[in-house]
Amino acid sequence: MKKLMKSYKSSIINAFSHTIKVCTISIAGLIILFNAISISASEKLEVDTDKTQWVDTFIGTGGDGHTFPGAVVPFGMVQLSPDTAAVNRGIDPQAEIYKHSAGYHYDDTSITGFSHTHFSGTGHSDLGDLLIMPFTGKAHLDVGTVENPDSGYRSRFSHNNEQSKPGYYFVELEDYNITAELSATQRAGFHKYTFKNNQPGQVMLDLTSSIYNFSNKVIWSDVRVIDKQTLLAYRSTNGWAKQREMYFAIKFSRPFDSIDLINLDNNRYRCHGCLDHKNSNNKTKPSTIVNSAIQFTAGKAIKVMAHYNNPNEAPLMIKVGLSAVSRSNALENLNTEINHWDFELTKKQAQKQWQKQLSVIDAKGSKSQKRQLYTALYHTLQAPSIYQDVNGQYRGVDGEIHQSADFTNYTLFSLWDTYRALHPLLTYIAPDKVPDMIQSMLAHYQQSYDNILPIWSFQAHETWTMIGYHAVSVIADAYLKGITNFDTELAMKAMLDTANHASYDAISDYKKYGFVPMDKLSESVSITLEYAYNDFTIAKMADAMGNQDVAKTFYQRASSYKNLFDHDVKFMRGKTSKGVWDPDFDPEDAKLMGPFTEGNSFQYTFYVPHDVTGLISLIGGDKAFENRLDTLFNKELSHEKIKEHEDIAGLIGQYAHGNEPSHHIAYLYNYAGKPWRTQERIRQIMDTLSSDKPDGLAGNDDVGQMSAWYIFSAMGFYPVSPADLTYAIGAPQLPYIALKLSNGNVFTVKASGLSIKNKYIKTALLNGKPLKRSYITHNDIINGGELKINMSDKPNKSWANKMYDRPPSMNMN
Amino acid sequence: MKKLMKSYKSSIINAFSHTIKVCTISIAGLIILFNAISISASEKLEVDTDKTQWVDTFIGTGGDGHTFPGAVVPFGMVQLSPDTAAVNRGIDPQAEIYKHSAGYHYDDTSITGFSHTHFSGTGHSDLGDLLIMPFTGKAHLDVGTVENPDSGYRSRFSHNNEQSKPGYYFVELEDYNITAELSATQRAGFHKYTFKNNQPGQVMLDLTSSIYNFSNKVIWSDVRVIDKQTLLAYRSTNGWAKQREMYFAIKFSRPFDSIDLINLDNNRYRCHGCLDHKNSNNKTKPSTIVNSAIQFTAGKAIKVMAHYNNPNEAPLMIKVGLSAVSRSNALENLNTEINHWDFELTKKQAQKQWQKQLSVIDAKGSKSQKRQLYTALYHTLQAPSIYQDVNGQYRGVDGEIHQSADFTNYTLFSLWDTYRALHPLLTYIAPDKVPDMIQSMLAHYQQSYDNILPIWSFQAHETWTMIGYHAVSVIADAYLKGITNFDTELAMKAMLDTANHASYDAISDYKKYGFVPMDKLSESVSITLEYAYNDFTIAKMADAMGNQDVAKTFYQRASSYKNLFDHDVKFMRGKTSKGVWDPDFDPEDAKLMGPFTEGNSFQYTFYVPHDVTGLISLIGGDKAFENRLDTLFNKELSHEKIKEHEDIAGLIGQYAHGNEPSHHIAYLYNYAGKPWRTQERIRQIMDTLSSDKPDGLAGNDDVGQMSAWYIFSAMGFYPVSPADLTYAIGAPQLPYIALKLSNGNVFTVKASGLSIKNKYIKTALLNGKPLKRSYITHNDIINGGELKINMSDKPNKSWANKMYDRPPSMNMN
Repeated sequence: MKKLMKSYKSSIINAFSHTIKVCTISIAGLIILFNAISISASEKLEVDTDKTQWVDTFIGTGGDGHTFPGAVVPFGMVQLSPDTAAVNRGIDPQAEIYKHSAGYHYDDTSITGFSHTHFSGTGHSDLGDLLIMPFTGKAHLDVGTVENPDSGYRSRFSHNNEQSKPGYYFVELEDYNITAELSATQRAGFHKYTFKNNQPGQVMLDLTSSIYNFSNKVIWSDVRVIDKQTLLAYRSTNGWAKQREMYFAIKFSRPFDSIDLINLDNNRYRCHGCLDHKNSNNKTKPSTIVNSAIQFTAGKAIKVMAHYNNPNEAPLMIKVGLSAVSRSNALENLNTEINHWDFELTKKQAQKQWQKQLSVIDAKGSKSQKRQLYTALYHTLQAPSIYQDVNGQYRGVDGEIHQSADFTNYTLFSLWDTYRALHPLLTYIAPDKVPDMIQSMLAHYQQSYDNILPIWSFQAHETWTMIGYHAVSVIADAYLKGITNFDTELAMKAMLDTANHASYDAISDYKKYGFVPMDKLSESVSITLEYAYNDFTIAKMADAMGNQDVAKTFYQRASSYKNLFDHDVKFMRGKTSKGVWDPDFDPEDAKLMGPFTEGNSFQYTFYVPHDVTGLISLIGGDKAFENRLDTLFNKELSHEKIKEHEDIAGLIGQYAHGNEPSHHIAYLYNYAGKPWRTQERIRQIMDTLSSDKPDGLAGNDDVGQMSAWYIFSAMGFYPVSPADLTYAIGAPQLPYIALKLSNGNVFTVKASGLSIKNKYIKTALLNGKPLKRSYITHNDIINGGELKINMSDKPNKSWANKMYDRPPSMNMN
Repeated sequence: MKKLMKSYKSSIINAFSHTIKVCTISIAGLIILFNAISISASEKLEVDTDKTQWVDTFIGTGGDGHTFPGAVVPFGMVQLSPDTAAVNRGIDPQAEIYKHSAGYHYDDTSITGFSHTHFSGTGHSDLGDLLIMPFTGKAHLDVGTVENPDSGYRSRFSHNNEQSKPGYYFVELEDYNITAELSATQRAGFHKYTFKNNQPGQVMLDLTSSIYNFSNKVIWSDVRVIDKQTLLAYRSTNGWAKQREMYFAIKFSRPFDSIDLINLDNNRYRCHGCLDHKNSNNKTKPSTIVNSAIQFTAGKAIKVMAHYNNPNEAPLMIKVGLSAVSRSNALENLNTEINHWDFELTKKQAQKQWQKQLSVIDAKGSKSQKRQLYTALYHTLQAPSIYQDVNGQYRGVDGEIHQSADFTNYTLFSLWDTYRALHPLLTYIAPDKVPDMIQSMLAHYQQSYDNILPIWSFQAHETWTMIGYHAVSVIADAYLKGITNFDTELAMKAMLDTANHASYDAISDYKKYGFVPMDKLSESVSITLEYAYNDFTIAKMADAMGNQDVAKTFYQRASSYKNLFDHDVKFMRGKTSKGVWDPDFDPEDAKLMGPFTEGNSFQYTFYVPHDVTGLISLIGGDKAFENRLDTLFNKELSHEKIKEHEDIAGLIGQYAHGNEPSHHIAYLYNYAGKPWRTQERIRQIMDTLSSDKPDGLAGNDDVGQMSAWYIFSAMGFYPVSPADLTYAIGAPQLPYIALKLSNGNVFTVKASGLSIKNKYIKTALLNGKPLKRSYITHNDIINGGELKINMSDKPNKSWANKMYDRPPSMNMN
């Protein structure tokens, strides 16, 4: 983000200057854009019926946001979206891979085609299944280069001729004078291509293209021509997920005039269709191949080109059903979800789903604020995504096809990211999906043979990315909030089996030593701290279930963080199994394979979300703790240290908003009795690290976690420690936000007097009564009501500074 | 065969000389071994209860027979057998590939391990799934070389310490002092390894090994350690079948002490477990990989080594269930079929199945004759083989998993070979399997999307090997014999769709021109001739079903052979679409991509099995026809011409017994009124091209076709034109053979006076009445009865020489 702020800065200022008031002041060497709160007098503070108008799917497609602009429905299996940098059959330059994690980047000027699967906001990449591209002129087999789009079927495009809204994407392919429109259902994509030139055209269906492509990424693929309007295809790829299988049913709105099945594989079976092994002669028998009856080809590099002599006689539409199970399921998914050729109908249905799903929040604010808020909401309603066919079949992590009897299977559990705010938010904005998401994790547990909950899984694969066992937090948070219509006994068993796993990341050492020794496993401090938090959530849930033995054990394990706090240096510090502190300790160090994960001790020392009070004691009391927080926010890292950091982005000092370990830290001032400092920090983060522009996310959206942070923080509170059912109050950033709950209640936050200057809380009323504490509880929210906060330009330093008005920590339970 | 006759000749003579009388006389430059008829006085002509004693599974493992010696049950999905030349991760020398089509060759002196799938007798290769090898000493990862077995886990062995009988195989692995025993059920293999050295040992489970291996043959594989006695594995290979998928459930009789999952893949995902794409740094994060919870690995080159500290404490047994559907089905197959650790029980059950299945034929004869006959019978009862799991699921040619409601799915349809004698024989020796085999072909037709019956298919793949659409012959032959418990209406539709297919091998040209023009497709003459025969079988079945229109059309198409008979040269000859005869015509030419398939015009001119009478007219009458036959048998091909021939073996002149286009030819003298010449030829073929030794097959057994030829010919008759329900009489080669039919009837052939000299038919009695015709009908057989043939040393030239006593041809229908 830091880097991109530079390149976008001037355009942002220009863009803002003619719509809303912009002030720039310099704090700590950064230019702060005071755009968030400024509402011009001409704008009405109204609640809109159709929230989709505020979703700008391009937010996050610039910078390092890694979101995609294409068509998707809430929690849909299909994400049909343009790709701008996919390189076929080659390896993308290293820097380009990260930039194009979502296939599309706002910087780019040419489109390679439209593929059907995309991650939203991840820091790693994969997917990009079945790239489709219409074009005229030379029947290029290759996509062409960024430098010379004319060398392939790639087409230039302009953001001026590009539109997107939830469930719909539109772009003019300038090189071919083709209008491309996309829409989607849960399991199918709908393409509409309007050829405007009077010349023959073709549609490329490219099974070699991938996001994060590399040689041998495609394990195998095949395509069958069923008739002149129907193809069935298959592709298996090796990547982040190993042998990820996807099947496609493809229908064209009218018969193609001819079709080429192109097998580019140089490495194919060296004797296909010949019998050259016989008699030691190198013979071929093309007669039995060239004239083979079925139009079928299989290999590692398959492309299909459907030719139309008169593509402009009517718009050419293509529907693609997807399935991870089989070709027939792909076809059934397609036929069930799009049994017509009415593109507008599918587009409207998609929009309608989004209108309904986004209506969970009413908000008043500036256009920019509403764009940010509803786009964030849009980004939190995409994953975990459906991974099950209409007939109930899905592929499990055991590689088996399972029939789901009583739940919808979900995939894409980026749990290290999303346990923090996304999953807690989903309990309010999509509570009907939560039990199925948990049941999907339990199915993963059961199907994983050695019985472990997902760590970072997608599409029937455990990737073992990141650390901890945060699935337990997601389950406990939901359970404790009363969402219990999943197999709770199985869930507790799964949580215990996972937390006591014999071979996962040094759990046995953690249990033996009370911490993960740095000589046993790298990232040992981060792992210890996260295990301790995870254990707290297990304890809470066991407690609530009446299992006091388990609760006691895990409350005890939850204190393990203390074992890595070095009282001499007052930091979390690596320790060996012999009890020797890391001799090379430097709290700013973030060396890979060191004791920390995507961070340093400065950041990770604050990772005791469940016992901040205990941490404050260790560090030396409120003042020392506040000073330490200030140092984090104020002291910039050297260039060398920044280079060490993985995934560092969105920096304020060493606070890295673009990376999850920082997400709760601004709220920690509350625990030291200084909520006004949190209020300052939230405004600082909002103003410097969030906007409604393509680069408006301070880092990877991480499957909605960054967006969920935004939504909670905009409402004025945040789940520092999910599963403790409390929310630290920050500062509302919009004058009015109402959360419409599924039980019929509405929880409203009104920020009276909110302005650029009035960023501090003066007083707060909960349902009309003064609220003296700097936190609210889940019950406060779920029972509905009104949190009215009177804002001021001066901090109220006496508000909620007493010990019992601060957010509770484990010690207090 | 020719080449191998040289190398084996002396050993054969030696072997025979001390058991049975051997005469060698020289005819036409070939050494003829008169072993078949000679029965020593001490041998009793008894019918044996247990026929398995006569099966010698090594017959066909030498020479070019391409059979395997390992354990299999009748029509079983698993063929667990030793491999002797598999080269891991490398490409076998070209000559070795063909020689080792069945994994094992009798010439070899070391064993690489025991794999679970093998073709019996094919001329092309694939399979060899999951090689297992026990060994002690150095934990080699590599198999080692033939030249230096000590360089890997390969072990020397000796035929002296090797035994096999139906369903059981035994060998001493000399390098390790391990006794290896194998048995099998339909879907599972059972290994028993007795370690006799007092030292640690290991078992290699090699997912990289294949029969016909080459780089990139393995598309993907994986293995999961479920517990210390259970593994699940998967492998997908590209080969003759594209993306053939096989799943394995592996159980050890006792826990291994440790296990290595070895991933040798150098070409693997270049960033597995690291996030090196981020920040452009090349970092690795082994903590999340090395300590991953599940013992799982996946890639293109996986080997697993299970270690035992004390392998000799008891025999180590391994059970392996297979499935083409899923890991869970593999496990279910295993648990259903072998739910115990009693190796002897499985061995006995396998033997019992063979005892029952082989008891369909009673025979009297010399030991050598019984060995040949029952081994041939054993080889005809293996394929088409079961390709369906115990729960009814199977993988279809559409790549989909299907649930079979009412039939057992079979695979391995080597139809160009097997329509000739194997499938007609199965209607007698395994009639209960025939409807399911046909239903399996109909399922293939339905699942093939563009609706074509199998051509040469196995394991859910159409290989498009060879020519014609001979499935129609198999179906018509069964239907006309009264085997009708399959969907006969669907069958006729499938036959017509196939015979009128728009894109399979020039059918549209064949219909347009009355022949396949040589400028349209290579092998045009062979294809035309085989289509004409295929069309005859459709006409016959349509006729029987009362569909006269179809019958008329296809009888007409069946005459198409006449369109390629050049009256000037009196040979079948290529012709262009302009009607111009092949200017380069040479009846001895067998050039690849020329107008003939694995043959020349000398051979293929005889390919009018359904209308030999018509062919005789074209060639110029009985004498000219007889002369032509004699020329075929007498005129040897030049060395250059032989080199041109694909799959040429078992030569008598140009007659190539090792290849199918010759199989009916010796019987054609009957049609010219010269049955005594057929009798001579059959004896000549039997004596020179068949023995009970490892190289006793004159060429590839071709999934039982060669063996079926032997059985029919030994009984004294042969289906020259399957579906016309007649059998040309040759000359019985055993004194007594009784075919016990499923309807309770028995058809017995007695050859009275049969001896080395008495090879001619003097007179014949059918059920006590003189038989004057040189053919019998299906009804003669199925109604039961006795064909008594009095043999003589002189030909009876007046027997069955009249026109109406000759076998009927299409003209007579």
